[in-house]
Amino acid sequence: MSKAEQADSVGIVTEELHHFDVPLDLACGVTLKSYDLMIETYGTLNQSRSNAVLICHALSGDHHAAGYHSESDAKPGWWDAYIGPGKPIDTNQFFVVSLNNLGGCNGSTGPSSINPDTESVWGKDFPKLRVRDWVESQARLADRFGIQQWAAVIGGSLGGMQAMRWALEYPERLQSCVVIASAMKLTAQNIAFNETARQAILSDPEYCDGDYLAQNTYPKSGLSVARMIGHITYLSDDAMGKRFGRELKAGSFQRGIDDAVEFQVESYLRHQGDVFSKKFDANTYILMTKALDYFDLAREYNENAVEAFKLAKCKFMVISFTTDWRFSPERSKEIVNALMDANKTVSYAEIKSNYGHDAFLLPNKRYEQVFRQHLNTLSIDEVAS
Amino acid sequence: MSKAEQADSVGIVTEELHHFDVPLDLACGVTLKSYDLMIETYGTLNQSRSNAVLICHALSGDHHAAGYHSESDAKPGWWDAYIGPGKPIDTNQFFVVSLNNLGGCNGSTGPSSINPDTESVWGKDFPKLRVRDWVESQARLADRFGIQQWAAVIGGSLGGMQAMRWALEYPERLQSCVVIASAMKLTAQNIAFNETARQAILSDPEYCDGDYLAQNTYPKSGLSVARMIGHITYLSDDAMGKRFGRELKAGSFQRGIDDAVEFQVESYLRHQGDVFSKKFDANTYILMTKALDYFDLAREYNENAVEAFKLAKCKFMVISFTTDWRFSPERSKEIVNALMDANKTVSYAEIKSNYGHDAFLLPNKRYEQVFRQHLNTLSIDEVAS
Repeated sequence: MSKAEQADSVGIVTEELHHFDVPLDLACGVTLKSYDLMIETYGTLNQSRSNAVLICHALSGDHHAAGYHSESDAKPGWWDAYIGPGKPIDTNQFFVVSLNNLGGCNGSTGPSSINPDTESVWGKDFPKLRVRDWVESQARLADRFGIQQWAAVIGGSLGGMQAMRWALEYPERLQSCVVIASAMKLTAQNIAFNETARQAILSDPEYCDGDYLAQNTYPKSGLSVARMIGHITYLSDDAMGKRFGRELKAGSFQRGIDDAVEFQVESYLRHQGDVFSKKFDANTYILMTKALDYFDLAREYNENAVEAFKLAKCKFMVISFTTDWRFSPERSKEIVNALMDANKTVSYAEIKSNYGHDAFLLPNKRYEQVFRQHLNTLSIDEVAS
Repeated sequence: MSKAEQADSVGIVTEELHHFDVPLDLACGVTLKSYDLMIETYGTLNQSRSNAVLICHALSGDHHAAGYHSESDAKPGWWDAYIGPGKPIDTNQFFVVSLNNLGGCNGSTGPSSINPDTESVWGKDFPKLRVRDWVESQARLADRFGIQQWAAVIGGSLGGMQAMRWALEYPERLQSCVVIASAMKLTAQNIAFNETARQAILSDPEYCDGDYLAQNTYPKSGLSVARMIGHITYLSDDAMGKRFGRELKAGSFQRGIDDAVEFQVESYLRHQGDVFSKKFDANTYILMTKALDYFDLAREYNENAVEAFKLAKCKFMVISFTTDWRFSPERSKEIVNALMDANKTVSYAEIKSNYGHDAFLLPNKRYEQVFRQHLNTLSIDEVAS
């Protein structure tokens, strides 16, 4: 039996491209005349269209959240541990919509797409995006499916920011908001890591001032260093220690050899950086990190998160992980406190995990349990379509 | 009154170059025929030569630890807060020796020096160094001053590793070993950060495969990104937050402007990276981080730190800082536990500080107090020279 045939897998999935030609006014002031969104869906939309769940992805995520693209696929989608028949986001119950965000590099319109006005690649001229722009484009996607209200809008990290923005922008259009390993705004340290990653990309001569695709190249080293920084900070110190320790790659020190990779962790990081640089677009990376930096839930509500959350009408589930130091439990507690002060219904779980920020992607019994429990409380018209 | 004239300053100091022409066998197997060490001294060596203290510097430190080079100097040496008349390392009492380590780029022989065999710059061909090589070169420096035993060997971070190695290599030659914000070996996370910094340098085309000086250039961007990574990790999340928060550089978002520096923290980091890249040698940076990675106190003692420390004859003072996450209090406690199990005299202080790893350089009442107290316990022949 292939992995795709397992009972708890959504199986072989097919991506769908949705074209939108109603102009989209972006927060930066630019209007996008038309755009495409690449999506995947899992499960079946019920007759009342009340069982739809929106998955918002993080920095380097995409629409392929669950299942396999072919029988020979080695790896499933990025959140396959949580989406499928009988899994916390149960596709026997829910119709799951997952998209590659606008500005992405996996099929949706973004910096590597053709600008219809110039008939060449957008590159660094692609308009700057904010979290609210994604929410707007996702609302139009809901319209296309005739979904008036999502049963839940769910996201981890940058995805959690989108879920929170949904609750403020379209209070009637979601029954529940699930915010995982996220924050109402980044800390200075987080911005600093993002800026360092961007500098690595921008200073790579192969970045070609953003026009690398037109020059038939890409900033391999810069993007690789950016990913290495990200990778270290998404893992906990402890998880790295347990996984790599100080294991030597060659078993002993290769003294005197220039640029020798001595430790397993070095070899692993270089590999991760290398793989990522080949498949991810540098301008998308810059755009996504900027959206993360800019996000500040309460900025236009007099810097008052309670005032902001008073607009929300949905219930909330907030989840954090003990060893996550880029989006620490403290940041989640700030969300929970603001929600409670705004008299919202909120449940909160701080999950014990050794895996840092990456924990939100990984199997964990307690996390599965609280996640499942929350989604089970949603009222869904049980008449199947 | 100029800063140099203040009562607690060592005042105007002069660097001295010491040439050594007895060949030095390095741990990597290479022999260095001759070398220079640039040093500074503060205070007066007493007649019995029993009041000498050795300062071992960290990754980017140098010999200029205290005082000013001229009346117009804006900044004193890097550890001026702790070295001077009446300061914890009291120059009324101690004769302080501070050097630029071998492999450095501030006057001592290193990658930017001329290789006498080739008559061109060593560059990346400069031999790889280990902490033990520094201890050996420092022992020869002690010989030159006729110092049989240091009252104390003191170091923070990489400097603390040198101090510990001194205690094992020359147990008779130090009365006290002061290990601040250090570790018996780096964690995988620390190695990972160092490797990412090195990759940023190595992948900068201006690195020219290590021969940038011969090409009349230097890897400005790579070294700058390396420093940015370092800088973030030497500060605590909280310290960055308090110092920069999410303050905007221009007061409001410069939406749509390419590569705009939006946050103060971005501007600060870019500036720090820029300044550092102009004054520090890239090959020295690589050499120093490799020495950090390689250091493993107990490796040749059957991986048994207790067995290693049994060789020591000095007393120890170990100091850590609560928010230091690159050399966390846990690492210091490992040192203290091994020392206790080896029946050594050790005092330990975990200092409350908000400043992360950088705390070891900054004024702090409690830190000053325990540091001073420890040094006061040393027996020094009081007959002045």
